Amino acid sequence: MAATGQVAAAADLETLHEVAQQIRVDGIRASTRAGSGHPTSSMSAADLMAVLAGRHLRYDFQHPELPTNDHLIFSKGHASPLLYALYKACGAISEEELMTYRTYGSRLQGHPTPVLPWVDVATGSLGQGLPIAVGVALAGRYLDRLPYRVWVLCGDSEMAEGSCWEALDKASHYGLDNLCVIVDVNRLGQRGETEFGWDMEVYRRRVEAFGCRALVIDGHNLEEVDGAYVDARETLGRPAVILARTIKGKGFSEIEDKNGWHGTALKPDMAERAIAELGGIRDLHIEVRPPAPGAPAIQPDHAPVSLPTYNPGDKVATRRAFGDALAALGARPDVVALDGEVSNSTYSDAFDKAHPERFFQMWIAEQALVAAAVGLQVRGYVPFAATFAAFFSRAYDFIRMAAISQADLRLCGSHAGSEIGADGPSQMALEDLAAMRAIQGSTVLYPSDAVSTAKLVAQMADRSGISYMRTTRGAYPVLYDNGTEFAIGGAKVLRRGDGDRAAIVAAGVTLHNALEAADRLAAEGINCRVIDCYSIKPISVDVLAEAARDCGNTLVVVEDHYPEGGLGAAVMEALAGQEHPPRILHLAVRDLPGSGKTSDLLAAAGIDADAIVNAARHAATTSGGH
Amino acid sequence: MAATGQVAAAADLETLHEVAQQIRVDGIRASTRAGSGHPTSSMSAADLMAVLAGRHLRYDFQHPELPTNDHLIFSKGHASPLLYALYKACGAISEEELMTYRTYGSRLQGHPTPVLPWVDVATGSLGQGLPIAVGVALAGRYLDRLPYRVWVLCGDSEMAEGSCWEALDKASHYGLDNLCVIVDVNRLGQRGETEFGWDMEVYRRRVEAFGCRALVIDGHNLEEVDGAYVDARETLGRPAVILARTIKGKGFSEIEDKNGWHGTALKPDMAERAIAELGGIRDLHIEVRPPAPGAPAIQPDHAPVSLPTYNPGDKVATRRAFGDALAALGARPDVVALDGEVSNSTYSDAFDKAHPERFFQMWIAEQALVAAAVGLQVRGYVPFAATFAAFFSRAYDFIRMAAISQADLRLCGSHAGSEIGADGPSQMALEDLAAMRAIQGSTVLYPSDAVSTAKLVAQMADRSGISYMRTTRGAYPVLYDNGTEFAIGGAKVLRRGDGDRAAIVAAGVTLHNALEAADRLAAEGINCRVIDCYSIKPISVDVLAEAARDCGNTLVVVEDHYPEGGLGAAVMEALAGQEHPPRILHLAVRDLPGSGKTSDLLAAAGIDADAIVNAARHAATTSGGH
Repeated sequence: MAATGQVAAAADLETLHEVAQQIRVDGIRASTRAGSGHPTSSMSAADLMAVLAGRHLRYDFQHPELPTNDHLIFSKGHASPLLYALYKACGAISEEELMTYRTYGSRLQGHPTPVLPWVDVATGSLGQGLPIAVGVALAGRYLDRLPYRVWVLCGDSEMAEGSCWEALDKASHYGLDNLCVIVDVNRLGQRGETEFGWDMEVYRRRVEAFGCRALVIDGHNLEEVDGAYVDARETLGRPAVILARTIKGKGFSEIEDKNGWHGTALKPDMAERAIAELGGIRDLHIEVRPPAPGAPAIQPDHAPVSLPTYNPGDKVATRRAFGDALAALGARPDVVALDGEVSNSTYSDAFDKAHPERFFQMWIAEQALVAAAVGLQVRGYVPFAATFAAFFSRAYDFIRMAAISQADLRLCGSHAGSEIGADGPSQMALEDLAAMRAIQGSTVLYPSDAVSTAKLVAQMADRSGISYMRTTRGAYPVLYDNGTEFAIGGAKVLRRGDGDRAAIVAAGVTLHNALEAADRLAAEGINCRVIDCYSIKPISVDVLAEAARDCGNTLVVVEDHYPEGGLGAAVMEALAGQEHPPRILHLAVRDLPGSGKTSDLLAAAGIDADAIVNAARHAATTSGGH
Repeated sequence: MAATGQVAAAADLETLHEVAQQIRVDGIRASTRAGSGHPTSSMSAADLMAVLAGRHLRYDFQHPELPTNDHLIFSKGHASPLLYALYKACGAISEEELMTYRTYGSRLQGHPTPVLPWVDVATGSLGQGLPIAVGVALAGRYLDRLPYRVWVLCGDSEMAEGSCWEALDKASHYGLDNLCVIVDVNRLGQRGETEFGWDMEVYRRRVEAFGCRALVIDGHNLEEVDGAYVDARETLGRPAVILARTIKGKGFSEIEDKNGWHGTALKPDMAERAIAELGGIRDLHIEVRPPAPGAPAIQPDHAPVSLPTYNPGDKVATRRAFGDALAALGARPDVVALDGEVSNSTYSDAFDKAHPERFFQMWIAEQALVAAAVGLQVRGYVPFAATFAAFFSRAYDFIRMAAISQADLRLCGSHAGSEIGADGPSQMALEDLAAMRAIQGSTVLYPSDAVSTAKLVAQMADRSGISYMRTTRGAYPVLYDNGTEFAIGGAKVLRRGDGDRAAIVAAGVTLHNALEAADRLAAEGINCRVIDCYSIKPISVDVLAEAARDCGNTLVVVEDHYPEGGLGAAVMEALAGQEHPPRILHLAVRDLPGSGKTSDLLAAAGIDADAIVNAARHAATTSGGH
């Protein structure tokens, strides 16, 4: 049966079966046209999505910015043919646009991204959509206090990701009955049967053990599907997880439930047979119910923020200044903070004390921590997530994907580098600058004192993209007056003179060592310029280039980080395109540190004042322009 | 009661209570002396460890290399005072060494590392010891076929890490009844009560749902503890998880079960009171039962490996050559392979076909994938773990920690860069070179053709540290004769002449673009040197420096990676210390890619042959030495 027409709100299931068939056909057509894509993984969940859109979703596709809209997140992002075909059925995109799938310049990418206004976040790295959805649901329940629902479509294979269980744990912990997870248990993964095939009871036991309501259904029986959504909407105090037994490739007998068809577009002749078996091309439209009117409980305003001030010379850890500044920023009602059970170390507990209603404890689950922050910013909040810098490496894939989501995210990693001393290398971030710099569009900050930290934290709140601040465990002298401004992309020259014979570029703890070294060299009659490179990305090309020009085209760069990809590389990348790039004498942590006092470890790594004195003296005595 | 003396094997529980008190006292003494550490998190599990060592562990501390030894992994690595005090009680370390805890140069670091011969792997990033233990247990059950047991001590807070649930899932999937996990449920985390406090039933339900046997006990009742170990040893077909309700700070009434004492060494006066309450200083020794004799079923030999060969000019994807070479390497009985459910994409399925008994499917759980590989190498196996390059970012913390473990690990990431085309940015590794280069002691390889890939894969097998190979999705021409050798740390000059006016440094897909560009420029009369920089870390300083010298002190570097920290930075870091570092014209992926044909995306990023032609022409016409 081929048909054209509008489907009424709360459409009958018979009609929605036709819509599901259309979605299957359209997914096949789009992927066959593209020559790639995942039609079979789309076909298994077509009935689930047709019933959702036709009878339960509340969404205004003309106004995706409405705060009251539901959220639909495809954690199984590879089912993009399904998502786009659904968008077409909902009137959001045209037949013509659907046929641009996966072509250069199209909004319909291989996996969904927020280039499309109805897509909250990029997916395609499995096990991420669900934990991000937890963040959106947290916003709905605790901040917006709006009745919108968050619907997440997961694949069965991705339930092997620990991040999914972190997510279900947090969802039940926070009583997120506004979250409904739909697991498309189609039994077949990329390379054969999944770990559990159709053993629905394994999924049920796990989901229930993690505090959620499990609803096991036949994902192709539209009455059961509809009933499960009703049950999910009526579930109180905990999330609902619909475990839908489905058939991969459902609707085309040649490939139904057959291995070897994952991620494979049908050839045109096969697609033709599939479309015929599915009842041909249709042009049905679903009238999705719009959301009820409403407004978020929290309205962003730019309330005056009174940043903390410090006395020059006092010893204050930058991690403490981060906490102080974060708590002060809480005067803005849109600022929220998230912790990975280390808030008394990162000092984000200062925010918790001041604004407990906007502080989310994510326990020791850094993936959930970052994902929830991504979800919160979907709803316009300004999340700061903090843990030890080393432990953001646990969430690196989430940060990578957040950049693809064009998310505005603020991360603060404390206890960076060998400076931490006695706790040993497992707690030392020594690769974080490299990793965070390589995130597309990121900002990387590494202040040395409390004043600059506070000023930069405030700017992170308004920064787009992923911004990352590295803070230090120990307390070091406040270097700046409270009136000093610190532009992102800038650098401060802390020691300079006409006769500077060497230039030292440092940040964080090494800046204090550099200042000591410069003072000692000055006493010898060797004046050195000292640059506080607090903004590592973007970096101040001007200040660095000037220093190289003035100081014998040599820079001493010193960092508490492994030699690859950190501050040294940032300086080199900034200047390498110049006609005569400067020579760089690069002091960094080259061997695996152990435990010890901070002074022992900085000396062992060759990044203490002694090492800087030697390097700067070498620079001063061997450089002479080019 | 203070006492000195040897405790007999299978010691009575009364004596083991004394040993536990000694361990508490010694943990307090060591951490108080150090001025930092986690005595309270050690005291909660002292009874558990005393009974384990005295009655169940089979280990020869004089011969830690014995293949038949049990393995004891402290997933809660912060309980290092407990571990080291236990080592002392077992006669492994002296009182004198115990008192060096956390001092510079001591083997007794803040968190355990394999600097100590009885420590298999570094821990301290929570949720890693358990998944690594799964790898050790896999080796015991499926490769060594020895009856040793793997005992893992976990904290309760770390059970929030999804990686722990990935691990329990894999452990039950593989029926690892040689694995016993002990969870020290002391209720208090770093900053307050844990998510579940003493709700033992939540833990029980989750553990059972994940296919393990749960044994809930009072962790201070030595009969119950002993009985649980007996039950664990008698459990067949699935792992046992002992859920022990314990008291943080147990044995010292001033701090027992009190918040605010996490990670805090006692001040000397307090320590004195604690030691007195715990019965004073003792010098008891546990006689740990040695393992039964035995030999691993697999003995490493260097069986001749017949690497695949290719016809120059044929188009072969490097990912396929990786699979071919890996399967060939399987002739060595110590080589094993692990997959994250993408073996038909990475082509590690070639190994699965040839050597299924040494192929481990870890499903879509990249943390478990890398962790199991770390565990397998603990037992001397040579693991290769493969997934999409982008998805190793999911396991970045595990790779970071593996370097601290001094693990020998081989990772192969396929589908690197924007080259993959239609699937879009979520599947493109564009930051992997930066991240992997920053891993301490790592090797980073990025071959361009099948012959070099195969040769390098073979060398990875004998390489120490973390080696990472990046492979490409598409098929490109074989460039080298099968007899060519590729040293790690080398580079190949593919085009050179006396009159080279520009030098192009490339790797992977961009090398093919560079060759095309050089040929087009040669036709214009501009000869360019082309360097295949297949070894990115270590990198060939000589070949690069020579090229700069010969070609106007300018290098064109082109990479399918974001601009930060990748091949460009590697080249800059290699040459930045020279008197006159070369100018670098750096072509890299600067904007977020979308979907499209490979040629569209390479052109958009400015890393295709056209862009290289322009850059090299610019280099040739603007450089002139210094």
